[in-house]
Amino acid sequence: MGIKTYDEYLSRLGNMKRNLYMGGSKCDRTDERLAGQLRVIKETYDRANDPEWDGLATATSHLTGDKINRFTNIHHSVDDLLKKQQMTRLICHRVGGCVMRCMGIDAMNALSVVTYEMDQALGTDTTKNFLNYLRYWQDNDITANCAQTDVKGDRLKRPHEQVDPDLYLRIAESRPDGIVVRGAKIDNTTAPVGDEIIAIPTRFMTDKDNDYAVAFAVPADWDGVKMLVRPANNHKRKYLQAPIAEIGDAESYTVFDDVFVPRERVFLDGKGDPRQTPFAGFLALLFAHYHRHSYTGCKPATSEVLASAAALVAEYNGIAKEDHVREKISHIVGVAELVFAAGQVSAYRAEKSASGTYIPDEVLTNAGRRLAGEEIYNEFKIVADLAGGLCSTMPFEEEFFSKETGELANKYIMRNPNISSENQHKCFRGLENLIVSELAGVMQVAGLHGGGSPQMETITMMARYDLESLKSVAKYLFGIEKELPKYERATVTPRKMLERFQKMYGSSAK
Amino acid sequence: MGIKTYDEYLSRLGNMKRNLYMGGSKCDRTDERLAGQLRVIKETYDRANDPEWDGLATATSHLTGDKINRFTNIHHSVDDLLKKQQMTRLICHRVGGCVMRCMGIDAMNALSVVTYEMDQALGTDTTKNFLNYLRYWQDNDITANCAQTDVKGDRLKRPHEQVDPDLYLRIAESRPDGIVVRGAKIDNTTAPVGDEIIAIPTRFMTDKDNDYAVAFAVPADWDGVKMLVRPANNHKRKYLQAPIAEIGDAESYTVFDDVFVPRERVFLDGKGDPRQTPFAGFLALLFAHYHRHSYTGCKPATSEVLASAAALVAEYNGIAKEDHVREKISHIVGVAELVFAAGQVSAYRAEKSASGTYIPDEVLTNAGRRLAGEEIYNEFKIVADLAGGLCSTMPFEEEFFSKETGELANKYIMRNPNISSENQHKCFRGLENLIVSELAGVMQVAGLHGGGSPQMETITMMARYDLESLKSVAKYLFGIEKELPKYERATVTPRKMLERFQKMYGSSAK
Amino acid sequence: MGIKTYDEYLSRLGNMKRNLYMGGSKCDRTDERLAGQLRVIKETYDRANDPEWDGLATATSHLTGDKINRFTNIHHSVDDLLKKQQMTRLICHRVGGCVMRCMGIDAMNALSVVTYEMDQALGTDTTKNFLNYLRYWQDNDITANCAQTDVKGDRLKRPHEQVDPDLYLRIAESRPDGIVVRGAKIDNTTAPVGDEIIAIPTRFMTDKDNDYAVAFAVPADWDGVKMLVRPANNHKRKYLQAPIAEIGDAESYTVFDDVFVPRERVFLDGKGDPRQTPFAGFLALLFAHYHRHSYTGCKPATSEVLASAAALVAEYNGIAKEDHVREKISHIVGVAELVFAAGQVSAYRAEKSASGTYIPDEVLTNAGRRLAGEEIYNEFKIVADLAGGLCSTMPFEEEFFSKETGELANKYIMRNPNISSENQHKCFRGLENLIVSELAGVMQVAGLHGGGSPQMETITMMARYDLESLKSVAKYLFGIEKELPKYERATVTPRKMLERFQKMYGSSAK
Amino acid sequence: MGIKTYDEYLSRLGNMKRNLYMGGSKCDRTDERLAGQLRVIKETYDRANDPEWDGLATATSHLTGDKINRFTNIHHSVDDLLKKQQMTRLICHRVGGCVMRCMGIDAMNALSVVTYEMDQALGTDTTKNFLNYLRYWQDNDITANCAQTDVKGDRLKRPHEQVDPDLYLRIAESRPDGIVVRGAKIDNTTAPVGDEIIAIPTRFMTDKDNDYAVAFAVPADWDGVKMLVRPANNHKRKYLQAPIAEIGDAESYTVFDDVFVPRERVFLDGKGDPRQTPFAGFLALLFAHYHRHSYTGCKPATSEVLASAAALVAEYNGIAKEDHVREKISHIVGVAELVFAAGQVSAYRAEKSASGTYIPDEVLTNAGRRLAGEEIYNEFKIVADLAGGLCSTMPFEEEFFSKETGELANKYIMRNPNISSENQHKCFRGLENLIVSELAGVMQVAGLHGGGSPQMETITMMARYDLESLKSVAKYLFGIEKELPKYERATVTPRKMLERFQKMYGSSAK
Repeated sequence: MGIKTYDEYLSRLGNMKRNLYMGGSKCDRTDERLAGQLRVIKETYDRANDPEWDGLATATSHLTGDKINRFTNIHHSVDDLLKKQQMTRLICHRVGGCVMRCMGIDAMNALSVVTYEMDQALGTDTTKNFLNYLRYWQDNDITANCAQTDVKGDRLKRPHEQVDPDLYLRIAESRPDGIVVRGAKIDNTTAPVGDEIIAIPTRFMTDKDNDYAVAFAVPADWDGVKMLVRPANNHKRKYLQAPIAEIGDAESYTVFDDVFVPRERVFLDGKGDPRQTPFAGFLALLFAHYHRHSYTGCKPATSEVLASAAALVAEYNGIAKEDHVREKISHIVGVAELVFAAGQVSAYRAEKSASGTYIPDEVLTNAGRRLAGEEIYNEFKIVADLAGGLCSTMPFEEEFFSKETGELANKYIMRNPNISSENQHKCFRGLENLIVSELAGVMQVAGLHGGGSPQMETITMMARYDLESLKSVAKYLFGIEKELPKYERATVTPRKMLERFQKMYGSSAK
Repeated sequence: MGIKTYDEYLSRLGNMKRNLYMGGSKCDRTDERLAGQLRVIKETYDRANDPEWDGLATATSHLTGDKINRFTNIHHSVDDLLKKQQMTRLICHRVGGCVMRCMGIDAMNALSVVTYEMDQALGTDTTKNFLNYLRYWQDNDITANCAQTDVKGDRLKRPHEQVDPDLYLRIAESRPDGIVVRGAKIDNTTAPVGDEIIAIPTRFMTDKDNDYAVAFAVPADWDGVKMLVRPANNHKRKYLQAPIAEIGDAESYTVFDDVFVPRERVFLDGKGDPRQTPFAGFLALLFAHYHRHSYTGCKPATSEVLASAAALVAEYNGIAKEDHVREKISHIVGVAELVFAAGQVSAYRAEKSASGTYIPDEVLTNAGRRLAGEEIYNEFKIVADLAGGLCSTMPFEEEFFSKETGELANKYIMRNPNISSENQHKCFRGLENLIVSELAGVMQVAGLHGGGSPQMETITMMARYDLESLKSVAKYLFGIEKELPKYERATVTPRKMLERFQKMYGSSAK
Repeated sequence: MGIKTYDEYLSRLGNMKRNLYMGGSKCDRTDERLAGQLRVIKETYDRANDPEWDGLATATSHLTGDKINRFTNIHHSVDDLLKKQQMTRLICHRVGGCVMRCMGIDAMNALSVVTYEMDQALGTDTTKNFLNYLRYWQDNDITANCAQTDVKGDRLKRPHEQVDPDLYLRIAESRPDGIVVRGAKIDNTTAPVGDEIIAIPTRFMTDKDNDYAVAFAVPADWDGVKMLVRPANNHKRKYLQAPIAEIGDAESYTVFDDVFVPRERVFLDGKGDPRQTPFAGFLALLFAHYHRHSYTGCKPATSEVLASAAALVAEYNGIAKEDHVREKISHIVGVAELVFAAGQVSAYRAEKSASGTYIPDEVLTNAGRRLAGEEIYNEFKIVADLAGGLCSTMPFEEEFFSKETGELANKYIMRNPNISSENQHKCFRGLENLIVSELAGVMQVAGLHGGGSPQMETITMMARYDLESLKSVAKYLFGIEKELPKYERATVTPRKMLERFQKMYGSSAK
Repeated sequence: MGIKTYDEYLSRLGNMKRNLYMGGSKCDRTDERLAGQLRVIKETYDRANDPEWDGLATATSHLTGDKINRFTNIHHSVDDLLKKQQMTRLICHRVGGCVMRCMGIDAMNALSVVTYEMDQALGTDTTKNFLNYLRYWQDNDITANCAQTDVKGDRLKRPHEQVDPDLYLRIAESRPDGIVVRGAKIDNTTAPVGDEIIAIPTRFMTDKDNDYAVAFAVPADWDGVKMLVRPANNHKRKYLQAPIAEIGDAESYTVFDDVFVPRERVFLDGKGDPRQTPFAGFLALLFAHYHRHSYTGCKPATSEVLASAAALVAEYNGIAKEDHVREKISHIVGVAELVFAAGQVSAYRAEKSASGTYIPDEVLTNAGRRLAGEEIYNEFKIVADLAGGLCSTMPFEEEFFSKETGELANKYIMRNPNISSENQHKCFRGLENLIVSELAGVMQVAGLHGGGSPQMETITMMARYDLESLKSVAKYLFGIEKELPKYERATVTPRKMLERFQKMYGSSAK
């Protein structure tokens, strides 16, 4: 019963209140400017209902034993992590890039760990709320956004130091029955077509930032939630249908205009209980971590889509056997392989947290995600290089079908004599969508920043990496220390990370 | 009398025949989809009429001694080359990238050399035709496209080997009064708003390709010329006016459907006179060379525009003093400086050709253009990196001005407390135009391929570079040769290049 | 009984005939110029005898069930591959880089697969010879060189086309009791201190190259084997002992001057039995493959040694907290992690061959090895960058201990006040050994070329990667094909590879 | 009379006191370990005496009108700067890299500007001392080291904050007749074979660092000067003579053990006259600037030497026509061209200082030097890549000439059939010297750090670059500012730089 169809999901969206703003007016979730993103989400329902994908796009709930959509699963084994990664990769192939639905489940996994750890440390009982909420998720095959990035105001100041106290999402009021929150989150992919929004902190919080230590979930059309929506779609096609032309993105600049959240949907409340504040940073980092692990699935797929397009156009252009062409394609393929391998080994080395949820290796996950981020623009460059200028100078589709110019347009687009004019046309039209459209621009930025920029991954990676241990190698080799212990790479586990936060901020958490 | 105003130019366009096809129907040159490109061309007229730019955007005709627009000038000194480069750079700053008008004058300079050399070698009198045409150009301040890139069909085959003989533009008929040409050229920037189209060969031609050794000029609305037009513009703004939002591009896929060209506008006719065939490659390369030298003006400007935006958003984001931020901006700035320096030294080392026209150094011009091409995607990456995700997730403009959401939208966009919400908004809206729009995608591809991809520049550069001489250094150092002559970098001059072609193809040119 | 001590090994070397040539005369294997390499090999015996390394540096023979040195083990499980990789990495930490003993066992694993496949295909019984030889190896804890790289003469010609037929090692005579071989192999690391030399082909062979399809093993001091030895060692230390100063390299340019090899030590004989010829290429590639997989163990270790030195000198120079310093160290660490992960996933995905030996994934192994090779010079650059010039301008050790200058030398080397002058001295002296010595130069080249250059890995990787399958992604997305099969990366397995060779060369192998 | 011969110079060295320490004892300047460096210096005398180099390796003294060695010239025109750059490049070709004599004249040019500016500002008369000293230089064709880099102790502390006050060179006593200095300088290339040592500050100094604001010149064997010398040479050759084998480097760790400097050789004395302190930073930066401009001559030459070797070995290996080979060589050549062009344009844009000395453009000089530094390791990688492993595994020379192995060694080294075995041998032996020797390691570090690491060049470049002006471009394009002034790159001139220092440190200089 846990797996829903796309139509069931769509009918839920149809019933939601209008709180999306696009171009100066409110609009429905079925607005055609959101069709591109819905097309992507559709894949995540269709695959879970596709017998061929059984066990990959589906999982077994550890709560109920029911078969569920893997996008609602809490990872309880290495295999769960491996399959999540592989499912992500394969669906991304079908939508030409971002799967759009990873962040909800990444947030849920992070919450499963943090609520449990917090309960253990403080004697709170947030886990109960979380599990009820998870049950709702799994039963209804929920699609959600995770709203993490605060607008942040002056980046050199902490939340409580800002001129305007609302520049980080904050708890305006904490009451027994719930909290009232105010602020805004940006870069909220999928939010316009999500059932739910899960809000979590964007950074760690000091004990002066208690009001900002907040996490909760609300329906996406909840009172006071206002979404300023930014869609990006490809040019509509009239003649040549193609999946690449149908996909799109939609982002939300989400305002929480004094939103009341009932207590059972609150997962972190530093204002009501300041002991909870250190868990804000823990949750922020753990979501980012699960999200980056998802990127070790989607980014290789993005690279593969680009490599695939590069290989195809090289064939169509008749240059597939040139040395430099093979070298360039091979470069993209190599990046994809390495990033995917990083995610796989992260899964193989995953640690089981106290809650039972598995946490992948952080150093490798970050090393993998970082490489993908560093290479994304270069990969677009390679495709453009092999395609030639035509991908950016293609006349409109109509010119290829009109009476007056159609014949000429098709005559001259011929390249590889083994490829029909129509396929040549499809290839370059597809390339236009893939690498020179507005959506392509969005995908470049997302490829760089999504889940955190390379800069952030370097910081995270080095925070986990035990550089002091590594130095013992040079000390031994240089004769500064006599012995070299059988060096094993040591990393900072999530539990140690939490302990650090607690020390740093003098939390009274035991 | 040689300098015209934008309005005079525009009124010429208004009188032209409709031979542009966009979206299934014919359209005027004043179609609003071409407004973005016209906005760019406008700068090239306005600056020539701006007293502050006198001597930079203007030049003195070597034909008449008249003051002319520098975009119609034949370079007769090192200073001409330096000023052309600097003018290009400065206008590009004003239009956020491509100046759109370089290729016409680049073609004219190449023709000035090649027609003269050909006349000297063969006793033809093409120079006379060329000078008459140049006079017309300078008197009327002509804007032109240079149509070089053939559609090329199977890239592994030469023109005469193609399945369809029309896949390279060819002379179907050569008559005393002129020629009839058939074929198509692509990637024709500016053609939709040009007065003229100058067609030249895309590669060297063997004596089996005589029909394809062709160069000529026709008015852009000439009988049989059909342009399939691809415009790219930014989203229209309602509230926040900004130059970046007004600019655009338009490209043409130009079909020559049995076009008759009168003899006085023919500059190369290998069908009528096969001795002319070797000059096809010479012309192809020389246009590319002048065009690449123009890129040493526009590409540094593009880099500077990107660096400028990067520096601005870094300030607005409050991260300007971070080490990595300065390093990244400095990287772009360094590339801009090096590419511009390459163009300058190319000018300082220019050789005067027999025609009197100056030809810049080829090795350096190619080295500079190549660096720019290799870095363009990386520069976009740096801007995106420093901007953060918001540049790709910005809600529409209306949301910032509507009653219902305007106040909230502006409240939360605040970052650096010294910067107003409106300027923050302008900055990110500008970034969206600059790096995540469809136009940005086109500019990336143009930055890579325009004037030839890095691959082509490597080939050209190494064809000119005298590697055998360079090897004498290692031979001396390794004791293989006893003496090292005072090594001076030797390059292959245009004249030597022509001699090579003649030898290669057994031309009867003396 | 399979594990020997370093002293036992050394005494074997002591008994060998003199066939090493260094500086114009024959020398013993105990020549002090070989001490550096012996110091490395020593680790491989000591660790196998170290209880703490039990199960990692030791393995269980699949032949006898005995405990053996892992450097003599045939991989019979994923775990064997993982442990070989990890052992390699950890020993490399102890010797500052190359472990020097991988190639022997890499050759043995390749032979285990190829001899078996050949016997199956041709009905030969080479496996018996191989297993006897393996038994000898395991019982005696043999150290061996694998001599693969032929001198190759004109690289554009095949073996049989060379001016001098001996430029690839060839079978001069094939007799019932054995073969006589003539030729030379180069770049033979470890050969000067090896018990044995295993010779294998360097490339695939056509049916005109039957004489060159040859593989065998001989004792390193066998009649007719002449080694022209090139050692590289660090400056001897008088005062400051350190492992980095003790290690060294030795390479052999090995001439086979009509060497007779008894039949039981011949593993491939294309002259005697031309049906065996296709297996030459198979063996060449499979050895390269196992060797590259070993590099996924040693290269991360080399990177880690360099990162470790970089981190140490950054601390000593007091710049450890600078952004750019952390970024640079993190870059090396990230490369190490990714390359190691590539090797691990290659192991996880290993296929069991018919012989029972496990073969790691080729695409990933090559992607990993290639990244390491591409980065090696950059890693040296980073260490030099953080060290500053002093690592290359250090006065000799004596100046720090002499009466006249010792006090001054030590006074001024002080940097970080928490670090003693002696440790500062040790650090920079160590850095000198690590990055500016002759040995460092050798290690750079080895880091690039060892196991094959990035160029070779690109070729191998793309030969295995199923690019046609990948293209189906773009074809689906662009609307060229209707369906996208659940795309799984397909690779070319060793068996398929062999079949290809057979087809290519019309082998009569069934 | 200003130009001396190498023998005259050598005889001066022969008369100097022994104050060099190598390997525990004092040694002469004719010690054979210094022969490699002397071989380099020899070129700088020989070329000035070579009629073919007249006007390039010689100049005309602005003091006396005499013909002098250009290595003693103060640049009084753009042409002087261009010729210095070109001379540097061409001599570097002859010595396979570093010319070793640039730093003396770079220091003299910096002093010519700073002493003059100081006199103007403070009414001192240091210029007189400087000009007398310059006269001595020009008359005697002096070779000098410039000792700039202090040992620096704790890099996070300023000179006066160090635990040991001597960790920056300081004035222990300032008397009317001179100063007494104490401290040490490192990385002093050429000092072991220099006539003179010129000491200058390594950074700017605050008014608490007056004692450290010091500049002066002393004969290299002056009382109290002790040099701890570090030579690096290639293996001696017995049979195959080659320039590459003869060159070497020597560096000094120079201790100033309470050295008295007579007043007429003191150029900066912040202890005696604290108003002089701000000129310390000015001098430090200006020397670095001239030195980096020299690098725009030598680094392109180094790149060209490497490209030359790469091209030669590619020919000898028979791979010269491979795409990737041409691409790689072209990459090095392109870097060389761009760096040289940067230096040339820096010269064209040079400003005449008040003293009459020309100062090249700083932004471009730094951009050029930085690119060279960033690429140096990559260039070694490319040579190694095209050479293959043999360059690092070559048997000793003797093996190719001995009776027992000579014939075999020469037989098997044959590659390209058009190249003799001896030339093959010379090529690989030369490559060994060039890229895998200890000297090669020193040259890599020097290529990175000499004149300042890329990090330092970024800092300098951005300190001069007027980023605020550049931002006006984005402000205009984004609609934040209405007008864009005709943007010309603005830079911070040396005079402005000095004014900044004065403001920063509250100097009483007018």
